[in-house]
Amino acid sequence: MSKGLPKRSEDYSLWYNELVKRADLAENSAVRGCMIIKPYGYSIWEKMQAELDRMFKETGHLNAYFPLFIPKSYLSKEANHVQGFAKECAVVTHYRLKNAEDGSGVIVDPDAKLEEELIVRPTSETIIWSTYKSWVQSYRDLPLLINQWANVVRWEMRTRLFLRTAEFLWQEGHTAHATKVEAEAETLQMMEIYAQFAEEFMALPVVRGRKTASERFAGADDTLCIEAMMQDGKALQAGTSHFLGQNFAKAFDVKFATKEGGLEYVWGTSWGVSTRLMGALIMAHSDDHGLVLPPKLAPFQVVIIPIYRSSEELDIISKKVNTLMKSLRGAGISVKFDNRDTQKPGWKFAEYELKGVPVRFGIGPRDVENGTIEIARRDTLTKELFDLSSMPIELKIASLLDDIQTNIFEKARIFKEEMTTEVNSWKEFEQVLEEKGGFLSAHWDGTAETEDKIKASTKATIRCIPLSSQEEVGICVLTGLPSTGRVLFAKAY
Amino acid sequence: MSKGLPKRSEDYSLWYNELVKRADLAENSAVRGCMIIKPYGYSIWEKMQAELDRMFKETGHLNAYFPLFIPKSYLSKEANHVQGFAKECAVVTHYRLKNAEDGSGVIVDPDAKLEEELIVRPTSETIIWSTYKSWVQSYRDLPLLINQWANVVRWEMRTRLFLRTAEFLWQEGHTAHATKVEAEAETLQMMEIYAQFAEEFMALPVVRGRKTASERFAGADDTLCIEAMMQDGKALQAGTSHFLGQNFAKAFDVKFATKEGGLEYVWGTSWGVSTRLMGALIMAHSDDHGLVLPPKLAPFQVVIIPIYRSSEELDIISKKVNTLMKSLRGAGISVKFDNRDTQKPGWKFAEYELKGVPVRFGIGPRDVENGTIEIARRDTLTKELFDLSSMPIELKIASLLDDIQTNIFEKARIFKEEMTTEVNSWKEFEQVLEEKGGFLSAHWDGTAETEDKIKASTKATIRCIPLSSQEEVGICVLTGLPSTGRVLFAKAY
Repeated sequence: MSKGLPKRSEDYSLWYNELVKRADLAENSAVRGCMIIKPYGYSIWEKMQAELDRMFKETGHLNAYFPLFIPKSYLSKEANHVQGFAKECAVVTHYRLKNAEDGSGVIVDPDAKLEEELIVRPTSETIIWSTYKSWVQSYRDLPLLINQWANVVRWEMRTRLFLRTAEFLWQEGHTAHATKVEAEAETLQMMEIYAQFAEEFMALPVVRGRKTASERFAGADDTLCIEAMMQDGKALQAGTSHFLGQNFAKAFDVKFATKEGGLEYVWGTSWGVSTRLMGALIMAHSDDHGLVLPPKLAPFQVVIIPIYRSSEELDIISKKVNTLMKSLRGAGISVKFDNRDTQKPGWKFAEYELKGVPVRFGIGPRDVENGTIEIARRDTLTKELFDLSSMPIELKIASLLDDIQTNIFEKARIFKEEMTTEVNSWKEFEQVLEEKGGFLSAHWDGTAETEDKIKASTKATIRCIPLSSQEEVGICVLTGLPSTGRVLFAKAY
Repeated sequence: MSKGLPKRSEDYSLWYNELVKRADLAENSAVRGCMIIKPYGYSIWEKMQAELDRMFKETGHLNAYFPLFIPKSYLSKEANHVQGFAKECAVVTHYRLKNAEDGSGVIVDPDAKLEEELIVRPTSETIIWSTYKSWVQSYRDLPLLINQWANVVRWEMRTRLFLRTAEFLWQEGHTAHATKVEAEAETLQMMEIYAQFAEEFMALPVVRGRKTASERFAGADDTLCIEAMMQDGKALQAGTSHFLGQNFAKAFDVKFATKEGGLEYVWGTSWGVSTRLMGALIMAHSDDHGLVLPPKLAPFQVVIIPIYRSSEELDIISKKVNTLMKSLRGAGISVKFDNRDTQKPGWKFAEYELKGVPVRFGIGPRDVENGTIEIARRDTLTKELFDLSSMPIELKIASLLDDIQTNIFEKARIFKEEMTTEVNSWKEFEQVLEEKGGFLSAHWDGTAETEDKIKASTKATIRCIPLSSQEEVGICVLTGLPSTGRVLFAKAY
């Protein structure tokens, strides 16, 4: 029901919220900040999970599961980590309810107070490293390459479906290595896997980069990231991969006997992507008509809508459709035949446009007679009348889906490039940020003070130091102090 | 590694605990009652999930995700539900931590108290039905066939890895229907899917049955279940499927406009299986040497162990192994080549025996010369020298894996039958329960009083009224009152 979907140009934020709800992706729940991921949205997430999980396993990682709860004292063990994460957390203090004496319902049993409060995990480094202590004795036990798919909770004050929610779903990889070099290579590898996933499956071009010290993960020595550009000119961090050095190994005393008979602390990494990717996917490609899904992540790639007046006509159409579906499915193309008699074709057309189904077939009795179907593609909103005798339908659609995937990516790539501007003075910085937005490629003096000042006065942050950036002598846009290379600034989600 | 595994006959409970830990399936965490599922254990769970998920989807169900937290007041909305679930729960009372003023770590911020406490979901009927209220308006919106894979928390006082843990992983299906008949059919269908999964994949024969009123799910009008028999003669409830009537629809005011223009409450079901299935899998088949895994759920079905003295020998063996692996993988058989030089073959043999890998190949330089391999099967602990020229290896192993799957199931089926005893007097009941254990098929007068008395005096409960049970006139083993059919009693996990 694209009718009434707000326009991006008028209110991008409202457009996003309405789109998420109307396309049946997610909605707010009765619990503040916690979302409900609806079946259509969840099936996109499942597709993301399946591809990422495959990529993790192909690079030797195994899944495991660690507790939801973290003893409060664990959070304090790593000095920087505690600053970053021991803040807005859900705290479990009691373990029993009882009936209220006045019969009004249930109350918390005051006698069932926990000795030590438990924190609902905001991230699992502490509980996992406390476990690694007993898993790692010798170099034979390394590397540990472990991933977990889980829910986490961060008590955000201002929440937004998918982009920032109190509870969200994610995966968190936690690896332990014998050497610094190995751990650094792992950090880079996982960032590259995220980048490949974003580009190949989400059709989302990203900048591969490194965070500045102030934007680093709390407890990491280095944070790599992928940054994407949304249609409103704001950046979105889509995945991070952290080199933890020996910080957590020291905090939790995880040592190993080396081949040479020594005893050393292990080196760690952690890396994660979350249901936030759903927000990125939606905001990067969708339009005023609704979602635009890349074929590789669409719950179904083709929807077939029969156009008929009588049940006899529907029978004739259905027969033809069954043949088409068989050919498509045989080629690995997912297809849905919407033959519900409770809705009209026009309603269905709008519905699947809103839901971003990449390809739509329309087929009526005359099409069956003539051996044709109407093929509409969602990305360009164009239609063609296709002669079924001209080539096998599965070849036609496989090639069309490839086209669509490439087209969506290319559109986003060009947009990202257009929205990346080199700026060389503070005036230019302010002007471009204000009038155009996007990534500002600028010289920076390398100090946290300057970074903070820029953030305070413009809300733009350093999204990353691109891994591809060249050494280039220049002067900081704000302070005029010397700089050795450009970094990317942007306002961000 | 199997050295020192306690014997089942000496201490079944200790055998189980040690096996779970030594086979790297799971371990206790620092958080009371919460387990860590280790990669080997988790990969079995992933295989279970994949099959169940496929079965759910093939019957029209879609996955979604609902919040981890439930407002305390929700639990009280369904009168029976609150009795069953508003008890041992993890209660979130605060949402922020802050640094202790004395620098000793972090403390709960007393200013960040929630207005209404949140309960970590022990099951999700209440939060889901509160959502269905807005999802269901008309008969067009029905049925809702939704499943969720999630973690849940029940603050159990006595916990045991997989069998009873404070946090566990499960799936919970929650469906809504226009008619009672449809909801009842769904309840039965899901129990049957669980039974088929248990028998076909877990090689676990089960009794399909109905719970008595006292053993029903809190809030259900009817509970169907599958019950399995463990090697120590105790029963284990492996899955339940509940017909909820209109109870939750009434509690959360979920009505729909009928085709005929009326307004009615919808009918509901819920059904779930959990990581408890891992416990059932382990206890049903394993032996004093370790795990015995059915091939259909084994993380890898074949392990290949090279027996060599020099790296030249390993090279020759590896070449041959690569050919074998290619053939096996091409036929969809999962295989691991353990060529680590950090462990001896004898150590590896014991390790994979402990881990229950269905088939083990041993291959040395002489085997390569002679065109043979040694094939050992885990279920019978027998070995054969196989002539590779006699038939393609993938056919040999595919057939062997089928044999093993069937053999494990048959062994468990015969055991279950042998452990099911018809008893016709109270003396017999007590004697069989004491000396033999297992299922006791007995007449019962149908009252909760008798059921309670039997439980109090013997610890045996009515596991179920088998769906296959015939009408048969008899007298209750305890009271001598008339009965119309036999039910199954057992001590249970």
